[in-house]
Amino acid sequence: MSTDPFRHVDAAVFDAVRAHARTGDERRADAEARALLGFLAEPGDGVLGRAVAAAGARAVAGLVAGGAPASALAEVLGRDGETATLQSAVQALGRWRPRLDDEAFARSLVQAARVGARLLVPGDPEWPWRIDDLGAAAPVSLWVRGRPGALAEGQATISLVGARAATGYGQHVTAEASAGLVDRGFAIVSGGAYGIDGTAHRAALASGGTTVAFLAGGIDRYYPSGHEALLSRIAETGAVYSEVACGTAPSKWRFLMRNRLIAAAGDATVVLEAGLRSGSLNTATHATELGRPLGAVPGPVTSPASAGCHRLFRERDAICVVDAAQMAELASGLGAAIGGASPSGGRVSTSAPVEPSHDGLRVLDALSTRAARGVDDLARRSGMSPGHVMSTLAELEVEGHARRDTGGLWTRRIRRR
Amino acid sequence: MSTDPFRHVDAAVFDAVRAHARTGDERRADAEARALLGFLAEPGDGVLGRAVAAAGARAVAGLVAGGAPASALAEVLGRDGETATLQSAVQALGRWRPRLDDEAFARSLVQAARVGARLLVPGDPEWPWRIDDLGAAAPVSLWVRGRPGALAEGQATISLVGARAATGYGQHVTAEASAGLVDRGFAIVSGGAYGIDGTAHRAALASGGTTVAFLAGGIDRYYPSGHEALLSRIAETGAVYSEVACGTAPSKWRFLMRNRLIAAAGDATVVLEAGLRSGSLNTATHATELGRPLGAVPGPVTSPASAGCHRLFRERDAICVVDAAQMAELASGLGAAIGGASPSGGRVSTSAPVEPSHDGLRVLDALSTRAARGVDDLARRSGMSPGHVMSTLAELEVEGHARRDTGGLWTRRIRRR
Repeated sequence: MSTDPFRHVDAAVFDAVRAHARTGDERRADAEARALLGFLAEPGDGVLGRAVAAAGARAVAGLVAGGAPASALAEVLGRDGETATLQSAVQALGRWRPRLDDEAFARSLVQAARVGARLLVPGDPEWPWRIDDLGAAAPVSLWVRGRPGALAEGQATISLVGARAATGYGQHVTAEASAGLVDRGFAIVSGGAYGIDGTAHRAALASGGTTVAFLAGGIDRYYPSGHEALLSRIAETGAVYSEVACGTAPSKWRFLMRNRLIAAAGDATVVLEAGLRSGSLNTATHATELGRPLGAVPGPVTSPASAGCHRLFRERDAICVVDAAQMAELASGLGAAIGGASPSGGRVSTSAPVEPSHDGLRVLDALSTRAARGVDDLARRSGMSPGHVMSTLAELEVEGHARRDTGGLWTRRIRRR
Repeated sequence: MSTDPFRHVDAAVFDAVRAHARTGDERRADAEARALLGFLAEPGDGVLGRAVAAAGARAVAGLVAGGAPASALAEVLGRDGETATLQSAVQALGRWRPRLDDEAFARSLVQAARVGARLLVPGDPEWPWRIDDLGAAAPVSLWVRGRPGALAEGQATISLVGARAATGYGQHVTAEASAGLVDRGFAIVSGGAYGIDGTAHRAALASGGTTVAFLAGGIDRYYPSGHEALLSRIAETGAVYSEVACGTAPSKWRFLMRNRLIAAAGDATVVLEAGLRSGSLNTATHATELGRPLGAVPGPVTSPASAGCHRLFRERDAICVVDAAQMAELASGLGAAIGGASPSGGRVSTSAPVEPSHDGLRVLDALSTRAARGVDDLARRSGMSPGHVMSTLAELEVEGHARRDTGGLWTRRIRRR
């Protein structure tokens, strides 16, 4: 156990990975502490989040690295009033301290500097602020390659996810959706995986849009390796993020935790195609837990590749979205008000010609396009009173559905659609 | 205007169309009155329903045919406490009286007898009691060919509807669903139309099940004519119903009103495939208004033939159903409780192998299938405390995910799925 985990870290190396190294000693020390804590803890460690919120990253890092007793951490944890703090503190230190390794930490920072990765911490102008909605489970720091501010304030975002085992249908729908969302000003958030993720990224790039990927492992090594070129291209105009230190391998746990970042980074999450075992359903669960709108794209019920989406309709109240317009609406917070009044719903309705009223329909049924008929005849045929038929005929005439001849008899007008 | 609309009706003809002719003068007179009122009014005439509920069919028929003033009908309508009764009465008599035509009525009954149609009235043991949920808009009588009691008490029912312009996908899904629902004991209700309706009927017949059709026109002439053979086959084991008298042509209005009978006759309604302008969406609206569970089958978003179903998810809160099991569940009243606890949802979940816990996953990530590792090593790799790792390893051992060698080191076991 070390009392100075930065012993082996070259200051120039840390400056290289910190865009904001020159903003003052205090902020620098906070960033150093967050880099260390991110190195020691697994993603989503809520005890770490609580401790940092209560005492600040420097105090917590000092306490962990300095060999303080668990009671000191328990005192910090106790400040938010939750119970079982001593046990939590003992367990937390038991998790973090075995990883204190000055040289490994220094190697990780050197590796980050080597690939041009930068460290972001909360409060940085480039910090993807939406992920703070994760509360105590939010990352203490983030590593980024590319344009660090790709998800900064003012940028609308949407997370497009799905299975690696994508079909031609899923890829087609994803490409259309991603391009359409770029056209509507959205940055596309995804996970850089094969299948739906890759298609979403590629279509966004092809449309000249911004897209970002959150990875489960360190960003010094792009995963999957078959997407090295794609992730490099993403980093040219967008960004590749991870909360784990360089040199950290992706693991199942880290994939699950990475998914919460994808869900949190988007104004909405849409699952475009997913089988029942797709990891994207986990991202959907995170979106729901965060209160983010969740959409899913239906597919043929004969396709197991869409079964996960259909399950989201049934079990997660996912909103059915069929095109980029509906996804944009979902992400714009109109999800709750989807109905006749929504832009998309409205467009569907108004594209139809003006329909006659119910009464109008009954009189229309009674009218002939060839045989001219009188009001009494129409009343008998429609089962409506003659007076009612007359007022309805007046409406139909205005709407262009019926015509009166000079003798006062009525015929139906053919309307082209 | 006639004072005895039965003047031209042969008693033997009426006996022929009434299965229950011998159950007493009063019931016979009630049935006669309902036959007449069904002949005079268009389907879904709520004023007629209210009047019959207040005074009985005989009194209302006498009042209409006997030339009573509108105030007499208004007095009847006033009994339920609703307002504007004189105006309603004037308009209603204006609708019904122009159709008083003794000879036409007699011809209609002769035609019914000729094709073997039977008259059903509420209270008959064969009356499809579910349609009484329509309240004042329920039919005063029904014409039926085939087995009148096909929808009688004790028979589970489900309405399968969709567009005439069906795709191969829609027909495939419909055939599977209909057959599967027959296997689960459901009678299949539909509208006898081309496309989805016809496929639902045919698959039910092919599975030896009961299926019934509600038509918009008189059942003396099967519509559409291309389905004459199909409707005849339906009537052999099931039934073909209509509320309009024999000789009445189908009209747009009558199709819309017929749809309310389909929605009311099923324990649930499922739209299997429908474009945005399909009449089956009207049936869906009726189901919702009746409080009946509404399901829809998703399809490719690239198929306009499924756009109506997707719209039902968004605008009508339709439940996503992908197979007969889910449809049966919907019709069994479990629709509101669809979720993890439902038979179908549960089956999906339990078909998956037992998954390790979140902690288990982190330890599994740290284990190797080849290199045996000690607890401290695993603690460092997983970011968990050694004590926590030990308890988690014990769980993993029980679940068959991990194995301890004689030296106390651990390896991961490969599990086949």
